[in-house]
Amino acid sequence: MSTTRSRENTRARLLEAAAQVFAEMGLEGATVEAVCERAGFTRGAFYSNFESKDALFLELAASVGEARLQAVRERVSALVGQNAIDDCDPADLVQQIMDSGADDRVGVMMMSEIRIRALRDPGFGAAYLAQEDEMVGSIAAIIQEIVDTGQITLRIGAEEAARLLMIVWEGMIVRGAMSGEDSDRLRRTGSEALGRIVELIRL
Amino acid sequence: MSTTRSRENTRARLLEAAAQVFAEMGLEGATVEAVCERAGFTRGAFYSNFESKDALFLELAASVGEARLQAVRERVSALVGQNAIDDCDPADLVQQIMDSGADDRVGVMMMSEIRIRALRDPGFGAAYLAQEDEMVGSIAAIIQEIVDTGQITLRIGAEEAARLLMIVWEGMIVRGAMSGEDSDRLRRTGSEALGRIVELIRL
Repeated sequence: MSTTRSRENTRARLLEAAAQVFAEMGLEGATVEAVCERAGFTRGAFYSNFESKDALFLELAASVGEARLQAVRERVSALVGQNAIDDCDPADLVQQIMDSGADDRVGVMMMSEIRIRALRDPGFGAAYLAQEDEMVGSIAAIIQEIVDTGQITLRIGAEEAARLLMIVWEGMIVRGAMSGEDSDRLRRTGSEALGRIVELIRL
Repeated sequence: MSTTRSRENTRARLLEAAAQVFAEMGLEGATVEAVCERAGFTRGAFYSNFESKDALFLELAASVGEARLQAVRERVSALVGQNAIDDCDPADLVQQIMDSGADDRVGVMMMSEIRIRALRDPGFGAAYLAQEDEMVGSIAAIIQEIVDTGQITLRIGAEEAARLLMIVWEGMIVRGAMSGEDSDRLRRTGSEALGRIVELIRL
């Protein structure tokens, strides 16, 4: 195995371990030691891959978001290719786009704890928001792709739509998670809300 | 001082102390002991007023929301009385309604920590959501009052509008707080976003 691939493998295993440890112990409880122990690596291996625990968890948050985004991109491409956007009910469209099988309950809890850190620590907050801006940009690009097909017209710009959809999605699924909804129900709850938003923002 | 007024006074002082202790130490750090010490009361006085620390903080969250809601009710009544709703720019309307001088930074942090508790503890989560549903109902009543004047017409029902506005407000001000915005800037950020939502939901 090459050095680069070995390094990527170590990184991936540390992120995987971090996700598990976080789910069990929360952000405060998920120490570097606990993550290393779970992944089977030394602190040295950790710190040659991640600058800090904060950096690790920011990257974990980003990877969860990116996995979802990639699933969305693939579904949108499929729907656009079938010319299926125009005659879709907005809620169905969103449901199809957002249905990706990712475990949202853990994602919800992780994002909530990361947000508290971001509120109490300005440096972490700035890093989190920068990452979120990238996510908004990626969502906006997907929306723009759909708009460019001519199959849907919006009353607001792609970036504003992206930010609104992201805020509403997050707001709805965190409440669903509090209600004890499982991941499938969470996605339906979020998708229904996004469908209503799409109805409001389309011409 | 009557027993009832003395009890209300004790309760109010405990809530005030809880707000201060929370702001300094967060939800985990704000123990019953710390709150009692700050308020100058015994544990006995605490537990004859509040069933638990959870109950205290849920009530604190509710009181923060209720204070804001009362300020909103007063401003709406003033605007409705002046027949001022119809010719208001939506963003200005929201700005005027939401400008109440409450300290939003502490409120943002408190709500974020309460939400984490609600995610990890189903009983607490259910209590929090029930409280939030009451808040949505109160906001919906205010919106319905405005709609009933005929000065504005909406594309969606008052309750759906209330929930959407609440979710977007919260989403925007938590991000503003992460950016280090002070309370005045937070309210402007939130109000601008709500103004855009009003433009989207009005006929």
